[in-house]
Amino acid sequence: MSKPHIVILGAGYGGLVTAIRLQKKMRRREMDVTLVNKHEYHYMTTHLHMPAAGTDHHENARVAISDLIDERKIQFKKSTVQQILPAEKKVVLEDSVLTYDYLVIGLGSETETFGIPGMREYAMSIKSINSVRFIRQHISYMFAKSKMVPNRKDYLTFVVGGAGFTGTEFVGELADRIPFLCRKFDVDPAHVRIYNVEASPSALPPGLPDDLIAYGMDVMRRKGVQYKLSTAIKACTPEGVILDSGELIRTGTIVWAGGIRGNSLLQEAGFDVQRGRVKVDPYLRSYQFPDTYITGDCSIVTSPEGTPYPANAQIAVQQGYNAARNILQTVRGKELKPFVYDYKGTVASLGRWDAVGLLKVKKVKGRWASFIKKMIDARYLFLIGGIPLIWKKMIWKQKGANRNYHVPN
Amino acid sequence: MSKPHIVILGAGYGGLVTAIRLQKKMRRREMDVTLVNKHEYHYMTTHLHMPAAGTDHHENARVAISDLIDERKIQFKKSTVQQILPAEKKVVLEDSVLTYDYLVIGLGSETETFGIPGMREYAMSIKSINSVRFIRQHISYMFAKSKMVPNRKDYLTFVVGGAGFTGTEFVGELADRIPFLCRKFDVDPAHVRIYNVEASPSALPPGLPDDLIAYGMDVMRRKGVQYKLSTAIKACTPEGVILDSGELIRTGTIVWAGGIRGNSLLQEAGFDVQRGRVKVDPYLRSYQFPDTYITGDCSIVTSPEGTPYPANAQIAVQQGYNAARNILQTVRGKELKPFVYDYKGTVASLGRWDAVGLLKVKKVKGRWASFIKKMIDARYLFLIGGIPLIWKKMIWKQKGANRNYHVPN
Repeated sequence: MSKPHIVILGAGYGGLVTAIRLQKKMRRREMDVTLVNKHEYHYMTTHLHMPAAGTDHHENARVAISDLIDERKIQFKKSTVQQILPAEKKVVLEDSVLTYDYLVIGLGSETETFGIPGMREYAMSIKSINSVRFIRQHISYMFAKSKMVPNRKDYLTFVVGGAGFTGTEFVGELADRIPFLCRKFDVDPAHVRIYNVEASPSALPPGLPDDLIAYGMDVMRRKGVQYKLSTAIKACTPEGVILDSGELIRTGTIVWAGGIRGNSLLQEAGFDVQRGRVKVDPYLRSYQFPDTYITGDCSIVTSPEGTPYPANAQIAVQQGYNAARNILQTVRGKELKPFVYDYKGTVASLGRWDAVGLLKVKKVKGRWASFIKKMIDARYLFLIGGIPLIWKKMIWKQKGANRNYHVPN
Repeated sequence: MSKPHIVILGAGYGGLVTAIRLQKKMRRREMDVTLVNKHEYHYMTTHLHMPAAGTDHHENARVAISDLIDERKIQFKKSTVQQILPAEKKVVLEDSVLTYDYLVIGLGSETETFGIPGMREYAMSIKSINSVRFIRQHISYMFAKSKMVPNRKDYLTFVVGGAGFTGTEFVGELADRIPFLCRKFDVDPAHVRIYNVEASPSALPPGLPDDLIAYGMDVMRRKGVQYKLSTAIKACTPEGVILDSGELIRTGTIVWAGGIRGNSLLQEAGFDVQRGRVKVDPYLRSYQFPDTYITGDCSIVTSPEGTPYPANAQIAVQQGYNAARNILQTVRGKELKPFVYDYKGTVASLGRWDAVGLLKVKKVKGRWASFIKKMIDARYLFLIGGIPLIWKKMIWKQKGANRNYHVPN
């Protein structure tokens, strides 16, 4: 009798936590587990706004997977998924084909451009170590370029589309970064512009009470951020961003943080999707293919009232716990446990020393909120890597980021 | 009776040394001296190959002019020269007009493209703090970009045109820098290419003996540099460099170190020029306008045999001494001293730990030559700023460059 084979696709929050929990809870020779990931590292998506702006080193936003899993228990395969064949219980990788008994899909999200012309070509997005390293370099490059070609205001104009969670956190860091870049490149800070464009009438993560939003926007404005609310982006061009009013903001830098959709591999595999995401059953399984668990940004979980929860790290981690548990229960022939989301709150940073948020219903803001935000980050690092990982990524950080805060770019 | 007014244009090696020597030697109220420079800093052109490659911080290649001159004695004016009117003894700046009794022109060089199509548009050159900061950012940007678009070898191909002094020193630093950038951007070093293209049959500064050239090329090849000798560049395009053989090297980075010419303001002012440079009399004065001294890359001084000396920092510094002295002699109604070039030698670095050169006729190479090179740099810093400047630029250097050698970019 052969052991069941569990394949986990993606080592993001959902996939990685599933793997770590299985590693911890499974008995010897109870099952084979293979974790597949495109990179040999896991990255903390919630931390990417900092290396994107250059206010922290990208090394502090990623961890080698080999530091997190025990390769005697979990087999790690660095490869890119080409195709999922859920009916045949197969996954096609770029260099091999895996067969599975149970599959966990945690392949994350893609940028949702809402069909805005030029967005794919001319905007960057905060989605991976490679992409944020590119954004950081691009920003410095624009500063260097502005010194070579006089009177090109567009090189020193930065447009961020979307003022939700990611957009706000990135803009906060970028505003903190500007004075450093101005000194570095001998640029007059008065020449730099940061626009945060948002289609909805309000900035900052949805769901925050009005007074926190007012506080947050005030903090950001004092850092030099100019908001364009109730303003949709009509198109992106090599010259800049065209707003729905027809106004053109000339810029060399567009960062799009306006939306995500589920990984397109799910739709290609025949799953019923809504913006790339799959509505899962109470045990996080696909309704169509009950051997397939789906976690994180690829899944839709609805509240008891029927509204879908927003995609974030918190829910993905909790899904990882539940998926691992339910796989073990299934293999052991026991009853599955339904997934219940335990919403702990949301805190959005506004640069280094400030943040706003809700802890359940309690409002937090300022330095205290910023500290809580760091504790949330630390808690996650503890969860996946224990105290050593907190030490490595938050205290004794990658050189060049710890001592100077800014990556000397 | 009014004091004579000396105007010095440009705070490069020639102009700055003239100003410093006048400051030291002139008597109280003997003359008014105005030093005009585009930037509020002086930079060491011979050091620029390092910040260009990113192996040193650009702060270590420049000094604030206010740290070097005593503004009670020399008036410093930060402005750009628009026009020289030697017949009227006037200089038009961007914001004012200066009249002078004696003029020193040390306005440096411009890039000589020899009319190669596309060179001006698609190649960068090592000529100022702004330009090397741009080159450094551009190189990092290419690495970041290579991670966003797979299979674009051109992003990791670097072409340097000219294998003379500047080309060689830059290529040596760039080759040293590559392993660091590969680690930083998760790039396989096997994918990186450095080409040094040279029209003449030999690399390294002209005049070196064959065994030193062989040694130097061997050092460079072991660092991964590929030479294309006896190869002219026919054109630069957005795709790369077209060689005279018709071969296209696809690249996103072209650095042109193939030649310089004198500042075009001299020709516009009516001076007789050869490639923008003015042949000066034995006292460094223009034959046409004897109240005008010309130093550094704008001037041509010939050896007793009649061959022009190559433009470099060494001769410019010595010209500064001579020009200051002859201005004082003139004002005092004394006899002028002819300029005699005291050639001390040439040492070209081959990356951080190696160099080759001649001290008069003595050959030096390896670590020892590299040390001598540093002593030459130190000597110049001592000359303009004393021991404190050596301390500031070579020992207690700008953070981020000293500890790690590489600017963490």
